[in-house]
Amino acid sequence: MKVKIGVSVRHVHICEKDFKYLFGEDATLTFKCDLSQKGDFSCEQTVTLKTDKNEINNVRILGPFRDKTQVEISKTDSYILGINPPIRDSGDLDGSEKITLCHKDKYLNLNEGCIIANRHIHMSERDSFKLGYYNNQKVKVKIKGEKSAILENVSIKVKDNYSLELHIDTDDANATLVNNGDICEVIENE
Amino acid sequence: MKVKIGVSVRHVHICEKDFKYLFGEDATLTFKCDLSQKGDFSCEQTVTLKTDKNEINNVRILGPFRDKTQVEISKTDSYILGINPPIRDSGDLDGSEKITLCHKDKYLNLNEGCIIANRHIHMSERDSFKLGYYNNQKVKVKIKGEKSAILENVSIKVKDNYSLELHIDTDDANATLVNNGDICEVIENE
Repeated sequence: MKVKIGVSVRHVHICEKDFKYLFGEDATLTFKCDLSQKGDFSCEQTVTLKTDKNEINNVRILGPFRDKTQVEISKTDSYILGINPPIRDSGDLDGSEKITLCHKDKYLNLNEGCIIANRHIHMSERDSFKLGYYNNQKVKVKIKGEKSAILENVSIKVKDNYSLELHIDTDDANATLVNNGDICEVIENE
Repeated sequence: MKVKIGVSVRHVHICEKDFKYLFGEDATLTFKCDLSQKGDFSCEQTVTLKTDKNEINNVRILGPFRDKTQVEISKTDSYILGINPPIRDSGDLDGSEKITLCHKDKYLNLNEGCIIANRHIHMSERDSFKLGYYNNQKVKVKIKGEKSAILENVSIKVKDNYSLELHIDTDDANATLVNNGDICEVIENE
């Protein structure tokens, strides 16, 4: 099975309450562009990620609002920030890393919410039936090229409106010289 | 075969002429600490890597002197700097990327010399006979863990005094959560 690759740069999913605290009661998520998964979009708003050691500016907020604020960074980012976020599925935030979000003079201290996202493949229910995969199944993907690799522990994520796409972070992408929109192959079920 | 992993952070190998230009006629490479390969050492001296787009400070010089100055960075670094170095074996610099090295008020413009180093395994002649590998052979290595992967296109580099060690860059290391000194397995010849 061939699958398109989406490279996830560090970003923030935010709950409405946290957003209003940072940007003001009257602020709303400002649409910048659509993302590949239907309904997801990139916002004009960005925040600064801050820790005791360092900070990273211009980190994009993605919409729509989530129930809980979630910060996704790479291992490389975690070294810059001096923190140790766990490898997690999106939404699985219990006991994850603490981090501070800043916008202008507003500082929001999160006791948890920072993760490194698991490699995962978005798949519609229709595709999962047709192709023979199931939710939370672990597969491997083969990436070709000068720094070719087989990435393991890739989770299949099935939801009705998902478009078929592998999501990897910038560390995986840069290690294998992958660009957004490149194609990989799912080579094996586990 | 199990092999220890060495993670190569961005660094500079320098020729004596370029070093004297940057640090002065009377300067010498100042020993900081030994590296894993016999005779190689980290120096107290660092330089700034500079391009039209950006710069990266505190990039370590490694000794001893080489015949030609060579800058090794990761793909992540290349995005920061806005350049496009090729994937190369050490020493294979023809037509590689240009870059500028700076120290204080000295600027050294290299027309070529910047590369992303090939994944490679250092191996002594003795080990190559004993283990059945040959110089420039391509192998794959399996890295275990939460972000496990099989890294392909790994070159065997045989030289008399080499210690058995896989060298990967920080992108490969961060994508697979590897730390310096971790162990991987060579799983297959190609």
